[in-house]
Amino acid sequence: MTYQPVPEDKFSFGLWTVGWQGKDPFGDPTRAALDPVEAVQRLAELGAYGITFHDDDLIPFGSSDSERESHIKRFRQALDATGMKVPAATTNLFTHPVFKDGAFTANDRDVRRYAIRKVIRNVDLAVELGAQTYVAWGGREGAESGAAKDVRDALDRMKEAFDLLGEYITEQGYDLRFAIEPKPNEPRGDIILPTVGHVLAFIERLERPELFGVNPEVGHEQMAGLNFPHGIAQALWADKLYHIDLNGQNGIKYDQDLRFGVGDVRAAFWLVDLLETAGYSGPKVFDFKPPRTEDFDGVWESAAGCMRNYLILRDRAAAFRADPDVQQALLDARLDELARPTAEDGLAGLLADKGAYEDFDVDGAAARGMAFERLDQLAMDHLLGVRG
Amino acid sequence: MTYQPVPEDKFSFGLWTVGWQGKDPFGDPTRAALDPVEAVQRLAELGAYGITFHDDDLIPFGSSDSERESHIKRFRQALDATGMKVPAATTNLFTHPVFKDGAFTANDRDVRRYAIRKVIRNVDLAVELGAQTYVAWGGREGAESGAAKDVRDALDRMKEAFDLLGEYITEQGYDLRFAIEPKPNEPRGDIILPTVGHVLAFIERLERPELFGVNPEVGHEQMAGLNFPHGIAQALWADKLYHIDLNGQNGIKYDQDLRFGVGDVRAAFWLVDLLETAGYSGPKVFDFKPPRTEDFDGVWESAAGCMRNYLILRDRAAAFRADPDVQQALLDARLDELARPTAEDGLAGLLADKGAYEDFDVDGAAARGMAFERLDQLAMDHLLGVRG
Amino acid sequence: MTYQPVPEDKFSFGLWTVGWQGKDPFGDPTRAALDPVEAVQRLAELGAYGITFHDDDLIPFGSSDSERESHIKRFRQALDATGMKVPAATTNLFTHPVFKDGAFTANDRDVRRYAIRKVIRNVDLAVELGAQTYVAWGGREGAESGAAKDVRDALDRMKEAFDLLGEYITEQGYDLRFAIEPKPNEPRGDIILPTVGHVLAFIERLERPELFGVNPEVGHEQMAGLNFPHGIAQALWADKLYHIDLNGQNGIKYDQDLRFGVGDVRAAFWLVDLLETAGYSGPKVFDFKPPRTEDFDGVWESAAGCMRNYLILRDRAAAFRADPDVQQALLDARLDELARPTAEDGLAGLLADKGAYEDFDVDGAAARGMAFERLDQLAMDHLLGVRG
Amino acid sequence: MTYQPVPEDKFSFGLWTVGWQGKDPFGDPTRAALDPVEAVQRLAELGAYGITFHDDDLIPFGSSDSERESHIKRFRQALDATGMKVPAATTNLFTHPVFKDGAFTANDRDVRRYAIRKVIRNVDLAVELGAQTYVAWGGREGAESGAAKDVRDALDRMKEAFDLLGEYITEQGYDLRFAIEPKPNEPRGDIILPTVGHVLAFIERLERPELFGVNPEVGHEQMAGLNFPHGIAQALWADKLYHIDLNGQNGIKYDQDLRFGVGDVRAAFWLVDLLETAGYSGPKVFDFKPPRTEDFDGVWESAAGCMRNYLILRDRAAAFRADPDVQQALLDARLDELARPTAEDGLAGLLADKGAYEDFDVDGAAARGMAFERLDQLAMDHLLGVRG
Repeated sequence: MTYQPVPEDKFSFGLWTVGWQGKDPFGDPTRAALDPVEAVQRLAELGAYGITFHDDDLIPFGSSDSERESHIKRFRQALDATGMKVPAATTNLFTHPVFKDGAFTANDRDVRRYAIRKVIRNVDLAVELGAQTYVAWGGREGAESGAAKDVRDALDRMKEAFDLLGEYITEQGYDLRFAIEPKPNEPRGDIILPTVGHVLAFIERLERPELFGVNPEVGHEQMAGLNFPHGIAQALWADKLYHIDLNGQNGIKYDQDLRFGVGDVRAAFWLVDLLETAGYSGPKVFDFKPPRTEDFDGVWESAAGCMRNYLILRDRAAAFRADPDVQQALLDARLDELARPTAEDGLAGLLADKGAYEDFDVDGAAARGMAFERLDQLAMDHLLGVRG
Repeated sequence: MTYQPVPEDKFSFGLWTVGWQGKDPFGDPTRAALDPVEAVQRLAELGAYGITFHDDDLIPFGSSDSERESHIKRFRQALDATGMKVPAATTNLFTHPVFKDGAFTANDRDVRRYAIRKVIRNVDLAVELGAQTYVAWGGREGAESGAAKDVRDALDRMKEAFDLLGEYITEQGYDLRFAIEPKPNEPRGDIILPTVGHVLAFIERLERPELFGVNPEVGHEQMAGLNFPHGIAQALWADKLYHIDLNGQNGIKYDQDLRFGVGDVRAAFWLVDLLETAGYSGPKVFDFKPPRTEDFDGVWESAAGCMRNYLILRDRAAAFRADPDVQQALLDARLDELARPTAEDGLAGLLADKGAYEDFDVDGAAARGMAFERLDQLAMDHLLGVRG
Repeated sequence: MTYQPVPEDKFSFGLWTVGWQGKDPFGDPTRAALDPVEAVQRLAELGAYGITFHDDDLIPFGSSDSERESHIKRFRQALDATGMKVPAATTNLFTHPVFKDGAFTANDRDVRRYAIRKVIRNVDLAVELGAQTYVAWGGREGAESGAAKDVRDALDRMKEAFDLLGEYITEQGYDLRFAIEPKPNEPRGDIILPTVGHVLAFIERLERPELFGVNPEVGHEQMAGLNFPHGIAQALWADKLYHIDLNGQNGIKYDQDLRFGVGDVRAAFWLVDLLETAGYSGPKVFDFKPPRTEDFDGVWESAAGCMRNYLILRDRAAAFRADPDVQQALLDARLDELARPTAEDGLAGLLADKGAYEDFDVDGAAARGMAFERLDQLAMDHLLGVRG
Repeated sequence: MTYQPVPEDKFSFGLWTVGWQGKDPFGDPTRAALDPVEAVQRLAELGAYGITFHDDDLIPFGSSDSERESHIKRFRQALDATGMKVPAATTNLFTHPVFKDGAFTANDRDVRRYAIRKVIRNVDLAVELGAQTYVAWGGREGAESGAAKDVRDALDRMKEAFDLLGEYITEQGYDLRFAIEPKPNEPRGDIILPTVGHVLAFIERLERPELFGVNPEVGHEQMAGLNFPHGIAQALWADKLYHIDLNGQNGIKYDQDLRFGVGDVRAAFWLVDLLETAGYSGPKVFDFKPPRTEDFDGVWESAAGCMRNYLILRDRAAAFRADPDVQQALLDARLDELARPTAEDGLAGLLADKGAYEDFDVDGAAARGMAFERLDQLAMDHLLGVRG
């Protein structure tokens, strides 16, 4: 196997990923700025399908209208020349100091109004460039101290902002859906809508819930110690996985944005297995940061590694599912029974069934082993490529 | 101030809390079993309002029907004698080995059926004893390894179980609501519905969502590093805070179940402030474990400390809100602006307002300080009792 | 490759691992007690080299002298029959309620005296059975609250205990060394000597430091979010890695004791690479708990999996080190330069060298990429078995 | 009580703390640069005793010799005018991209040489300004991936660097000691010498261990979930607490550097109790970052809050220790017994004492309660100021 990506794999990258200059809380940039046009060309050569961007990645904050047009024109030419797509885009609502207390939930009303308008402006561009998904990461919507933010008021304001955006794209007739991205903390002490679950719940209170889904990021859920594939499964179950950000994280600590596959590679294996099994067809974006130890050679190695690791894991997950020993082990672990309703006989049937309770052999049932360890070792064997 | 609780404070305890014998993963019990009747009497003396229980706390697993009746009779007599209430009850779906792979989501269908019946049996008793809330903690609904549980299937089974329970209490005409309790892990490697957010989202897919709310526990959310008052705020915002479990936890580690107030006392302060400000009127249950270093004197000290700490914090939070300096500091931090809609003028107004975007003084807005540090130091002063 | 262990691999198991009955903080045992003799036989069949035990694993707490002798005799016969060794042993200072506040650092002096005597008694047996390492895990040496333990006094008591034990084995002329095992928390809120570093530092204050080393456990360091191979490297650097406990853990949460290889498999890869490269020759003990979902078939699958995963990783690490592309990548990343002294020219030479500071081309040096991403992807390729 | 600090309290601040401009991984600065002279003046007005700095805080990186002299001169004048001291200083070995792979343990030898020379240059200035402690934080000494750093080689290089520095100050006759600062991660994925324990152990392998101690920082240990007062107690026990950095952190997440007292205020209470009880006399430096939501008014509020909180906690800890009820509770919890040797009778006496083992009433001892909950509630009462 060569594990060489092709556009059909539908891999995308954020402009801000390969373009990250390596500025961190304790250090200055280690790499020069990367021309978005070069990013498009290099990623196309590596086998990527698309590119995504924050408004300010493409058009430096504070550009005049004519500068803006010129940036867009060059970018569009690069897309045309390479065949790269823009499946999604997003807004930078966190870098400029005006957003220091948030955007949609800033205490200052004028900042909130400015933020919504900034989103709308880039939504227009995103649609123009063909995007069908618009990501919303509220990185600064949070607080470091208890009284600084009334969270119920903040949720009202968050709802108001998304309802206005839903109204806007409906009025414009845009074929676009929003994907809201959770994160538990950093850069704020605590961020509102910290996990996939909180976003899914929030969406249900919006006026047009059908326009809103979730954009989970591997590292963000893992920063809360949560099982990422479990979160994705709940998002899929709710029919709300509109977008996904793939990267790597070594447990509960600062946001690492490592290349996909590193960090918890077993979770990455189960994630790929789930996405492929479930037929997920939304954008798969690598939202990582090439470590600041690297020069540009390292940047492209790192980007290539993200895609390569996905393809290796996809191959391994497919072999796992196809293996007759695995299929038997799944039966031994009664996964088929889990897929079966608990009470096809309805409540009345269940209540009437003495075998279900009064005559149930509790100790006999307790004595059955679940056979999970054998199943999991088969998974390990497939992950490590030691079978067949 | 004496901080002496009275029944009007509506404090409850689980039978399993003061009755915990101190068995832990590395140690045998350090205390004798506690008679539920004594628990009722002692807690009443300490000023508690009510008591809650798992079926197996009150009626040892495997009791005959006549033993069961006798346990219930003695318990009811103790309630009558002391005036203690049973605001809520719950089911033990985790101690017996039959639940080793879960209850509502066990791979074994017969275990799932047994579990639902076990809940129904105790629901009947709970209603008989006057409970209006029924807690559901799915402590074993999870997995240690990736293939052992298909989470989408598990969520189907979880929904099926709660839909059956909703149907049951509707048919019976019970005045009862369910409160589902999230936990990220322990005793399973990862538990399904790991946080308040995941539960809130799940409820929206049930057939009778109005019968289901959330039962957050301080330590459970803190085991995922989440801000507990933020989670409670979202639950209140969604009108789904049906019950709350109060205890203490020192950060991300095993489930500690310390007495309320210890662990993150600042979070406890903001929690009490929120519950009191929001007018929360559901059960307030101390779900803690007196450390196994303690004898029964220590058990009652610990139980009394839970209530005392709540009352101290309630007093401090009230003083904080009443302080004119705090009120000014809240204005300085523009909490009043956060409470105000972002766009009373609607989408059209916002789009037409050049002051919102084209003419917005971004740098001027960015230069405004948020005045949060002063506000938070005032909160610290109130918490520590150094003002007034 | 078959990855079938042989005694020369020197793999050991604790009696308490395959013998764990599945009692956890929320659940009763799911498996029957396992006869130590059967454990020896089954592990020998699986290819293990040795077995280790707590006194109470082999001889139930409270046995009479004659019962004790009979337990030992049967055990010794099983060892003789199978050729299994006892490379190490340890003391249970945590299960009995008498140790609820610790053993060597219990506030009660008589408990401390009893604890030291209990260790001495089992040291005698360990030596008799051929052990050369004696593990000391102070699982209950800690506290849940601030005033309950004066940590400086506790460290005095801990030192006193180990100095007495060092004196004892010196006087007896035993060929035995102690390996102290750190853990950050659980079952105590915080445990004294929480990490490898704290133990290494503590040892330096003992009267016979040469008799004391560290026994790190994979999961224990990972419960503090620490890089396990880094900790092992510091222990090796200090010449203090006397023993190692191998298992798996999924990040910062309760102590999981999963089978070796699962959890952070990348860390496991680097660990095996380090142990093999460094020529570590002490005991390699799998200190894991077969999940309580399993029956005994699952127990043996799980035990076999521990060894199998080590062997797979050993194979992969060797291939990584032998690969010419890796060797070039290590040079590109300048690992050879790291191995070279910084100042062979001494302080005077360094101070006199203008090229080192005054004339140093800082920006030129800053521009060099470290080439770590390519190196790490090569490691990933080897781990996943996609090269050669 | 006014809780107004005076120089006798010996509080210091880093120039980089009040001078932090609010640049974070996702955001640009929110505050202008602060003139070091203004920092000295304002902190003096607030009641601080001293100031500490990185070379590059005082003298911008790349300054010419004459610019350097002029910066130093102005600074010295400010010190003289205000009476502020420089108890300690440190080196910036992390901001410039040349340090992207570390300083003393960079793979590139020339970077290592440059780093040592950069330290030496600032050591000279520190001594000239009266500093007696020199802090060494190796923030970039670490790695994101396994093969990128051979940790044993890195420890050799780390030792070499500190041995050279020890030689230098010895040769110069400087009255200076080094305080090495641990941190588990951020900005590197994992940092070498991650905790207080690892530093204490490392020091023992240096050529002049007497010149080296530890500089623990509240948040750094808490990022690993460790009990900070416990770590400080071990440092004091080893006679190695040469310096301390005080701030606040909300558990295991990115490095927050909140003002002292916030985060885990109970841990802060026990810390102050310990420092005051132990008679710690080294520098007490507030190493915090005023949140980037704040303007300069907020910066000074935040700085004042650090000192105020220390003074409040000092007052509360003293009241706790002076309270006769507490003293009785300490006896009830047998803290006096912990302070007493376990075996004044020596090994022989212990072995001969049948009461210690053969005749020991294990169950009787196990039945004693430890009375910790009452003690801890008294501490809570004192912390919250509800006694007396």
